[in-house]
Amino acid sequence: MTLDSLGNWRKTHFTKDITSALVGKEIILGGWVRNFRDLGGLKFISLQDKYGERQITIKKGVVSDDVFDKTKVGYQYCIMVKGIVKIFKKAPGGIEIIPSEVKILNKTPEKLPIDMTGETISELDLRLNNRALDLRSLKNQAVFDIRGEMFRSIRRFLFDHDFTEVTTPKIIGTATEGGTELFPIMFFEREAFLTQSAQLYKEQLSGVYERVFEISDCFRAEKHRTKRHLCEILILDVEMAFVSMDDILTILEKLVYNVIKDIREHKMGPLKFIEMENTTILPEIPFPRFQYEEIIELINNKYGFNIEFGEDISTEAYRKLGKDFPGYYYINNWPMSIKPFYIMPSKNTKYSESFDLQKGMLELTSGGARVHNKKQLMDAIETKGLNSASFKSHLNVFDYGMPPHAGFGLGLDRWLTMICGLNDIREAVMYPRTPDRLTP
Amino acid sequence: MTLDSLGNWRKTHFTKDITSALVGKEIILGGWVRNFRDLGGLKFISLQDKYGERQITIKKGVVSDDVFDKTKVGYQYCIMVKGIVKIFKKAPGGIEIIPSEVKILNKTPEKLPIDMTGETISELDLRLNNRALDLRSLKNQAVFDIRGEMFRSIRRFLFDHDFTEVTTPKIIGTATEGGTELFPIMFFEREAFLTQSAQLYKEQLSGVYERVFEISDCFRAEKHRTKRHLCEILILDVEMAFVSMDDILTILEKLVYNVIKDIREHKMGPLKFIEMENTTILPEIPFPRFQYEEIIELINNKYGFNIEFGEDISTEAYRKLGKDFPGYYYINNWPMSIKPFYIMPSKNTKYSESFDLQKGMLELTSGGARVHNKKQLMDAIETKGLNSASFKSHLNVFDYGMPPHAGFGLGLDRWLTMICGLNDIREAVMYPRTPDRLTP
Repeated sequence: MTLDSLGNWRKTHFTKDITSALVGKEIILGGWVRNFRDLGGLKFISLQDKYGERQITIKKGVVSDDVFDKTKVGYQYCIMVKGIVKIFKKAPGGIEIIPSEVKILNKTPEKLPIDMTGETISELDLRLNNRALDLRSLKNQAVFDIRGEMFRSIRRFLFDHDFTEVTTPKIIGTATEGGTELFPIMFFEREAFLTQSAQLYKEQLSGVYERVFEISDCFRAEKHRTKRHLCEILILDVEMAFVSMDDILTILEKLVYNVIKDIREHKMGPLKFIEMENTTILPEIPFPRFQYEEIIELINNKYGFNIEFGEDISTEAYRKLGKDFPGYYYINNWPMSIKPFYIMPSKNTKYSESFDLQKGMLELTSGGARVHNKKQLMDAIETKGLNSASFKSHLNVFDYGMPPHAGFGLGLDRWLTMICGLNDIREAVMYPRTPDRLTP
Repeated sequence: MTLDSLGNWRKTHFTKDITSALVGKEIILGGWVRNFRDLGGLKFISLQDKYGERQITIKKGVVSDDVFDKTKVGYQYCIMVKGIVKIFKKAPGGIEIIPSEVKILNKTPEKLPIDMTGETISELDLRLNNRALDLRSLKNQAVFDIRGEMFRSIRRFLFDHDFTEVTTPKIIGTATEGGTELFPIMFFEREAFLTQSAQLYKEQLSGVYERVFEISDCFRAEKHRTKRHLCEILILDVEMAFVSMDDILTILEKLVYNVIKDIREHKMGPLKFIEMENTTILPEIPFPRFQYEEIIELINNKYGFNIEFGEDISTEAYRKLGKDFPGYYYINNWPMSIKPFYIMPSKNTKYSESFDLQKGMLELTSGGARVHNKKQLMDAIETKGLNSASFKSHLNVFDYGMPPHAGFGLGLDRWLTMICGLNDIREAVMYPRTPDRLTP
């Protein structure tokens, strides 16, 4: 059988638009065959599009012989159906379409690499190898529908709070910020790097637009093979001028609250589909605020660890902590000694004006107030064993009236993983990149 | 003089919020000293923040001696002012602030690298070297305010038209699409590349979400040193399933129309400031549609060129054409021979279902319908002298019900350059990257 061409057919509706108001009307749907049943003289096709599915009912004698013969479909065939909307209580959604014409736009092999009916879940790597197909699954439809709302909600909230969306370069000249390993690139004759974070640029831009944010890719050349790490991650970077760390805690928890509120308000269907409606619930704000020192004391006393002041908190310790505090909470005022140079020391310089936002055992955000005095910043760079000369173009900016500023970076892939209760961060990304995965 | 700390001061308003409704009220502003005048017993400071400026009036005897002595400011000092709002007809905006307390949060050297009063315009490279300072200029404030509206308008329009915002990887495994030179990167032990466009991924995702868009960085390792080229560019990528090229022409011109409408509705102030209010005007839609063949005939006959069918149109020819057609217009149905493999041939396969959207002499968009049949796509790849094996993971997708689809890519930096009447595309980017520029 040859394939049909689109010709002058156009979809008149998406599946979500087919309501009882259209009963008796002729409509054209297009999409993919999610499921089909052949009972001899009676066939059913579940046609899926970007918003959901509708039942096409093909009964011998009711539809033309042409249509009856043509509707020998397979899983995920791409088809269009012209037909009449009818009430049918037993159909999903109480509506069926009686086709008058059908187009088969593209076919598939009889055996697909992954099951698309939702009856069995294929192994993640196999699914990622066939990601474009995998993304059509009802679960992924729900996850990425929630993701869309998350992004829209973040932008709405930040625009409502006078933030400017900025764009900072992904190719950077010097590998300076420290901490994370960078991907080197050849930039004509020079060595350059992919950005690990928008940190320095967003700080600079807080001296222009006062309140800035960026949602963009950052690149981490870390050979982690865990369920929480990626080489290419989407970070929400936020920076505010004329504020302290406390103001950031407040705006961040309001942001988190609002995003979850929006998801529950606008995406309850998808949330129910992935069975997260009782887990991803509105958190109480303000979030609990702990001091770093308080937390290590608790960890040591209650769970028998031996973390000393100035040490990081181990994954194992976080795991215990997360059981007692499964929700969102802040860990504030980390030791200055383990924070990057740009973090503002507290009055007692043993501590810093920094915080982590935790959700259970996982770190969602890291942030704090920054140094805005040039001399102090240069000293901090040298103290960390870095070379202030390589920060020349960044440091220059601090000559020209940098305001006090503070901000945070929030890993959106990781947050979506939590909100959707996914097992692996790769499930929260359309095309994940890991040390072992460069395709598709 | 030591600097003041923020302490418990917070801005109560932005400059834009200081209206006559606040007369007699105490407010706190924060920002930068755009200008100042010292007339002996009377001083004026123009305080600029992200939204505009307000006049601070410091009169001996009216303000405290402390405040009078403290307001020895320089250009771009970062300050906060607590004071009372007063009507003063001669002040810009008819309002002045009488300060009761002032904080100097950061100072600047007496001589700034670029003039920030707006009286003289420094040379572009010098400005880019000091970009964070340069971005505070009133002109840049206007340009990037318009840019913000452009981005918001695009997203609003596309969400209203059932588009899903997608995210595709920036690190790709194979240098395959052809045309543009790529930046190679070391991805652990393997060679990889920075993406030149979201083309193949957005096509795949049109088979999932039907209508997709992405606004993201693409990377071009081209050693162009022109006023129109960058190494890191922001592209709006759009792809639609179940449509033909004609549908894309319609949606694209509606998008262009809407963005300009939104800018004129919401950003007339900035547009006037950069003197573009009579140039960046609402275009008439539909845009004129020319055939490629018609255009080369016109170019040859009217301007005396000798372009043959199958040749590209030279910059010089576009320059002449742009004089006769300064607005937006389409050039459709380019020769298949000069189009990439994924472009759909027309019924007469000499032509293709492709188009360029021009604005005067400049190409703004390139787009068209795509091949969705796997066999045809494999043949097209081989015909172009490429190796279909290196497209394996992309071609696989075409086994699984790819719908007919079409789309376009629109260079946002170039478009903003046009809308704002800028002389150089680097002026439309916060931190541009060119072969000669890796910093700041």
